[in-house]
Amino acid sequence: MPAECRCGRSSFYFRRQSGEALCKRCFTKSIERAAFKTIKKEGLFTPNDRIMIALSGGKDSIALAHILSKIEKRYGAELFAVTIDEGVRGYREEGIRIAKEVATRLELEHYTFTFKETYGYTLEEICEIAKSKGVQLLGCSFCGILRRRLLNDLALKLGATKVATGHNLDDESQTFLINLFRGDVDRIGRAGARPLVTREGFIPRVKPLRYIPEKEIAVYVYAKGYDLYQRECPYVRASLRDEIRDLLNRLEADHPGTKHSIVNVSDSLSELLEEKIISSKVERCFLCGSPSSRKICRTCEVFSLLGIRRSSDRMN
Amino acid sequence: MPAECRCGRSSFYFRRQSGEALCKRCFTKSIERAAFKTIKKEGLFTPNDRIMIALSGGKDSIALAHILSKIEKRYGAELFAVTIDEGVRGYREEGIRIAKEVATRLELEHYTFTFKETYGYTLEEICEIAKSKGVQLLGCSFCGILRRRLLNDLALKLGATKVATGHNLDDESQTFLINLFRGDVDRIGRAGARPLVTREGFIPRVKPLRYIPEKEIAVYVYAKGYDLYQRECPYVRASLRDEIRDLLNRLEADHPGTKHSIVNVSDSLSELLEEKIISSKVERCFLCGSPSSRKICRTCEVFSLLGIRRSSDRMN
Repeated sequence: MPAECRCGRSSFYFRRQSGEALCKRCFTKSIERAAFKTIKKEGLFTPNDRIMIALSGGKDSIALAHILSKIEKRYGAELFAVTIDEGVRGYREEGIRIAKEVATRLELEHYTFTFKETYGYTLEEICEIAKSKGVQLLGCSFCGILRRRLLNDLALKLGATKVATGHNLDDESQTFLINLFRGDVDRIGRAGARPLVTREGFIPRVKPLRYIPEKEIAVYVYAKGYDLYQRECPYVRASLRDEIRDLLNRLEADHPGTKHSIVNVSDSLSELLEEKIISSKVERCFLCGSPSSRKICRTCEVFSLLGIRRSSDRMN
Repeated sequence: MPAECRCGRSSFYFRRQSGEALCKRCFTKSIERAAFKTIKKEGLFTPNDRIMIALSGGKDSIALAHILSKIEKRYGAELFAVTIDEGVRGYREEGIRIAKEVATRLELEHYTFTFKETYGYTLEEICEIAKSKGVQLLGCSFCGILRRRLLNDLALKLGATKVATGHNLDDESQTFLINLFRGDVDRIGRAGARPLVTREGFIPRVKPLRYIPEKEIAVYVYAKGYDLYQRECPYVRASLRDEIRDLLNRLEADHPGTKHSIVNVSDSLSELLEEKIISSKVERCFLCGSPSSRKICRTCEVFSLLGIRRSSDRMN
């Protein structure tokens, strides 16, 4: 690696794909520029937006909060952050502490909501029930369903016009392959940096970091002096996503640019699939009345699979 | 595995995905039905077609020749077979011998053409030149380019209205992933069982075995009493395709149906990409005048990369 950045400062990060050695300042600027480019090109935000940041306390959400604080405040958009406490003792507390520190440092309005107060059960309790009933939970899809629903409900309740999430290039290329291997054309169509079609009852979810590699996000967060929250949820299990992550990392090492290629193909296809999505109807869940493209929404499906009733003190 | 097929005969093949045990007769019928279904659903042939079978002597092309002889002759279509001798001593002779035997058994008009007489060089000679000039040949793409061109030229010369190839489910799902990892949206759009758009100068290539797993094709050919040609070309090198083959086989074992899912997604996307293909222009290669979507066709690109002139006694 060359000892110096082209600006003359000593090098901090070597970007293999482009062959550049970058100093800390040029590196962090390049990440911010990449996010800004996505925001501008995809038209993710307007100055009138009230943006809800999904702030888990993990590196991606920290980078997102930091970058949006720099960029969006300048344009007059309102920002606030929400942290979801799924309820996993010995694991989640650290993430919540970091999320609070990040919100304080960035002077962000910040809310924490729990699975327990929303659904009546912590993730731990849900996993125990599943285990006792012999229900096989498929990787993290289960927790993801409940978290995504809660984020949309909170966005509606707190008056957000956009929900921003920290999904990065690795997440997005992995997700494309998972949807492909499952033959899920509809999800392939809904995978862009922003939804191409606004659907009633769903606050648009946007992904400003969609084209930035996971590794560079980790380096960015470190460069900005944040605590990195490294623990892994004890309920994470070996999944298809792990296998795909390994494959993509091997491919990227041998053929730099593979992850970008996948996300670019995904973008081209999303545009083509737009028509199809427009024509698909949003229904209301038969059980809870929430907007859903299915007769029974996924959240109700999870609870009925476990044979438990969700808490009645839901927000909406 | 159950000892008996549902017809009462003793079982011969266990189809894991459906849980069926099949006798030899029911198994071979099921393969023929699958090919027939593709031919019918995709409208691959008409009774007026003169179909050229690309008969390498490998298992896929044997299965294809056998099945088309059974089905298409019944409908009055004309069939003939072409074998390409790339020129690799100690390897290719066996395939050519098998191809001749297959053509004799199936009473097919049969032609053999060589790289040497077409291009002026055998594959061996081309590989030697590449080696001596330090040109890196990318896997088998090189030989594939020359073979595909020759097949199209032969189809034009021999009055074929369709070229049928033995690509199976494994080939097709692998190819989709390779095109995806390379970000090649155009090729993703051209990947169906038949071309959605007929392009001037290109004889339509059809793939009746596109939805049949490689393994079942091998078993089919064995059941029909053909010699299996097992040698591997000495010029085959570890490639991206091998890595993808392994991945897909692991995924298929854990999640039966993955390969089908990929090919189904591929089909959905081909239809969406149809418009885009219609609008792309067929040009003529600046060097040889053959139809191509590029200024310089891939065949001329290969020869100019190697710095050699191709033989002037080309067919057209």
